[in-house]
Amino acid sequence: MYIVILAGGSGTRFWPLSRKKNPKQLMSVFGGRSMLQRTVERVLPLNPAHIIVVTNALQAEETARQLASLDRGTISVVEEPLARNTAPAIGLAAAIIEREDPTAVMAVLPADHYILDEEEFRATLLRAEEAASHWNLVTLGILPTSPETGYGYIEADKAGGKEGALPVRRFVEKPTREKALEFMESGNFYWNSGMFVWRTDVILDRIRTHMPDLWSGLSALNVPESTKHLSAMKEQVADLYGRLEAQSIDYGVMEKAEGVVVIPSSFGWSDVGSWSALPELLEGDEDGNVVMDASRVVSLDSRNCLVRGNDRLVALLGVRDLIVVDAGDALLVCPRERAQDVRKVVDELERRGLTDYL
Amino acid sequence: MYIVILAGGSGTRFWPLSRKKNPKQLMSVFGGRSMLQRTVERVLPLNPAHIIVVTNALQAEETARQLASLDRGTISVVEEPLARNTAPAIGLAAAIIEREDPTAVMAVLPADHYILDEEEFRATLLRAEEAASHWNLVTLGILPTSPETGYGYIEADKAGGKEGALPVRRFVEKPTREKALEFMESGNFYWNSGMFVWRTDVILDRIRTHMPDLWSGLSALNVPESTKHLSAMKEQVADLYGRLEAQSIDYGVMEKAEGVVVIPSSFGWSDVGSWSALPELLEGDEDGNVVMDASRVVSLDSRNCLVRGNDRLVALLGVRDLIVVDAGDALLVCPRERAQDVRKVVDELERRGLTDYL
Repeated sequence: MYIVILAGGSGTRFWPLSRKKNPKQLMSVFGGRSMLQRTVERVLPLNPAHIIVVTNALQAEETARQLASLDRGTISVVEEPLARNTAPAIGLAAAIIEREDPTAVMAVLPADHYILDEEEFRATLLRAEEAASHWNLVTLGILPTSPETGYGYIEADKAGGKEGALPVRRFVEKPTREKALEFMESGNFYWNSGMFVWRTDVILDRIRTHMPDLWSGLSALNVPESTKHLSAMKEQVADLYGRLEAQSIDYGVMEKAEGVVVIPSSFGWSDVGSWSALPELLEGDEDGNVVMDASRVVSLDSRNCLVRGNDRLVALLGVRDLIVVDAGDALLVCPRERAQDVRKVVDELERRGLTDYL
Repeated sequence: MYIVILAGGSGTRFWPLSRKKNPKQLMSVFGGRSMLQRTVERVLPLNPAHIIVVTNALQAEETARQLASLDRGTISVVEEPLARNTAPAIGLAAAIIEREDPTAVMAVLPADHYILDEEEFRATLLRAEEAASHWNLVTLGILPTSPETGYGYIEADKAGGKEGALPVRRFVEKPTREKALEFMESGNFYWNSGMFVWRTDVILDRIRTHMPDLWSGLSALNVPESTKHLSAMKEQVADLYGRLEAQSIDYGVMEKAEGVVVIPSSFGWSDVGSWSALPELLEGDEDGNVVMDASRVVSLDSRNCLVRGNDRLVALLGVRDLIVVDAGDALLVCPRERAQDVRKVVDELERRGLTDYL
């Protein structure tokens, strides 16, 4: 199996810790190794034929640096010249894999997801590999544990399932609370994890059908024989990306293609979409406060707060459900329920030209 | 007139900015000069015969440093070896003044109060000096502008007033909200500002009557002829303080003595008892946020907050009535209504032995 890791995100929702040059996937969100490093480590036991990490020019250096210690000669970093969402990134990776092994199964994994049970995750990937070998487009669908409104959903046809894979009826955008509750109760819906498994020739064929412009661009690429010489493609890729529109693989292919199946998955997953995800994933103290990387925290009459500290003392007095992130040069204070709006702070910084903090 | 400035407070309620070595009076609470410096500057136009600043050993060096630029040869710093509340501090200052001029009028002023209208303040002090010359113990009573529960009150006998001074009926401890409302409505009550004016011989006589132990200790002191040689008293003062109990002048003398009068005052006053006092004294932005000394603040959907910043960016998102104080090595986050409890954080730091932050 080939592994494609999508690591080009410019995530702003973990500001002030995440920055343009230090996005979520390169951050040590949970302490220790970065999310990208954890993503790579998580698949190493599968002995993948090749790991292709797709990133962008701004992050390429740090990405390569972080991967150096994990690389046993099977990791390649591919730079995108422009952010064009997931379809071009996946197409580019598929074109590279096709040069080596056109019928290889490839798994597409975002670099910035949290996974609790890594054994179960790998077992699920192997089930998906099996389903993909039958020419399906396979998605990993997470069994919902709450009526989340922050995720897209996949509706499956439970009656038509075979060997743990269920035919997909439809993809649904982030629902209202009411809808999300309905989805959960029906038992036919899964969270769209953005993780996919398919044969390289199959996804390229579906791109040909549903995204012909992307396909013709990819077909014209002169991919080097060895992934060691990928940098030789740089100008061609820049040309191609200049002509492409941003498009997600979900919208560009998955929602339109036939033969899409979902593997019901339950390995403990979160897309870690904002600071508020962390208190749900990490154990707090007796008052429910989650303290990360803070050398010293004093909390009095304070509950259910998240403190991401630095080298200074943080004192909380009489606060509830508050997020406090100290990034050294910048400090964020916001209620947990507003964590999704942290990107508005980033927008405001852009507007004011405070680029040092971006 | 002699001026005695009580500058020995170890105020913990402005933590993390106030520290043992940098208490409120030595802090630049309002930007620019410290509260002590402002207190001195405020009385300089009265051309006081002498300004005696009473402080403690830990703060003496910084106190002298701050006063150097203001001193025209009439400022003396007196060190207390132990904190014994206001009565010993005032008694010691009186004993020093007595050596120079036993019948001199002395005004006692805390070093850490906010005064809006300095002209009116000085005019009030002159009225108090006049009343003190008639052998009264004079207090400045602030006309209440709200039913504060954080101040002590003074009940006056309005019928018996003469030349702006009213006989005091009684001193009242911090009242309940209900009582405070009653006090305001009655029109006979004033906030006890802790500012006093009296003749040196009169206060020493009243100390003799009501605090005989303090009086005999003070009488035994061998005060040097010149205030330039006050340091020669150091051992004697240490001996004396070792034998004294802590006592406020309010409880030790004022509540018991006869001939106490109050000068109704309205120069815009606050004892600046906690961080929550500042938003009431300073003008906020259009959202009611007060930002002090913060190089950069981004506030979105945030109202009525106080940010005391440092050299880092502070971003507030969706918060209300919050106090955020960044002191470089320590950060405080608490609701405005909990500002009085900041000393509990200090207590906790003591308990944990985190002395670097005290």
